Amino acid sequence: MDTRERLISSTRELLWERGYTGTSPKAIQERADVGQGSMYHHFRGKSDLALAAISRSAREMRDSADAVFTDTGTVVDRITAYLRRDRDALKGCPVGRLTQDPDVMADPELRRPVEETFAWLTDRLAGLLADGRTNGELDPRLDPEATATALVAVLQGGYVLARAAGSADVHARAVHGALGLLTGDARRSPSGQENR
Amino acid sequence: MDTRERLISSTRELLWERGYTGTSPKAIQERADVGQGSMYHHFRGKSDLALAAISRSAREMRDSADAVFTDTGTVVDRITAYLRRDRDALKGCPVGRLTQDPDVMADPELRRPVEETFAWLTDRLAGLLADGRTNGELDPRLDPEATATALVAVLQGGYVLARAAGSADVHARAVHGALGLLTGDARRSPSGQENR
Repeated sequence: MDTRERLISSTRELLWERGYTGTSPKAIQERADVGQGSMYHHFRGKSDLALAAISRSAREMRDSADAVFTDTGTVVDRITAYLRRDRDALKGCPVGRLTQDPDVMADPELRRPVEETFAWLTDRLAGLLADGRTNGELDPRLDPEATATALVAVLQGGYVLARAAGSADVHARAVHGALGLLTGDARRSPSGQENR
Repeated sequence: MDTRERLISSTRELLWERGYTGTSPKAIQERADVGQGSMYHHFRGKSDLALAAISRSAREMRDSADAVFTDTGTVVDRITAYLRRDRDALKGCPVGRLTQDPDVMADPELRRPVEETFAWLTDRLAGLLADGRTNGELDPRLDPEATATALVAVLQGGYVLARAAGSADVHARAVHGALGLLTGDARRSPSGQENR
């Protein structure tokens, strides 16, 4: 990896682990094994580097979601696959966690990729839910936009609860509860979800 | 307010606004208008003070939830009232936001009140949902524990999405979607919820 990529990669890791406020330029340089002069050759400073890191994390989050949404299978299959896919629940969401960072939220340029990612995700899920309503898979009374917002909130809140409990199972349980409500199959066991 | 209370109150505000990592003992002293010597007379240090502040926020969160849960009305009325009650969605949850603070999560003593609060909340909601299942208000196939976890996740994730969008409406929309799924009344308009 070249110097610029090492800096972006290290910043992404540190933002995920410690947040923007808790990440110093010095910590980034040490993690990337890059000198101060070299860092300022590639980026104007911490905020410029954070923008590159956040944009990269946001793009990966969209790309990996899009791969599941455009996969084969019924609407419910694809939504289930997205909600249940492997994730490191205890680490939390690299994009969502930034909303708790007051310095990111106060900077419109840093907040924009966070806002756009969740707007895109909610919109895509709402489109899928609307398809499922049309093709008879889902309750015709379902409100696609509100339901999509609730499902994205379950994923994000699931991280909060998993971290609070120190157990990834809690994220799987939140997803199981949400899928039960969505599909009306509320009694189905979360088979294979307990170890995620 | 006496000095000790001013210190706790200022720490609660700063933890909510900036998190533990972003809050210095000096910032607490300035906000509380208390000298360094006086702060160390009342508390051993930042972590001791944070424990008092977090425990207080956790207790208030439980007390205010309990008041809604033990109110009159049907199970669905009480759950709806809890999910829809007035909240400053853009500020986020003073307890939930601590899960994004690596220094809080790494300290078992500071994490304990966070963990206990969400365990208590989920347990109480699960109890209400089980009552609603028994008395016929809710779908008999509903899994109380998983559904309760999903509902608490919607509230916590709703804060993430509201902050990302810079709009409290998104929290109200997530709650509306979740209540639609829970009650099967998915088309009902979120009347009066848009300005919260």
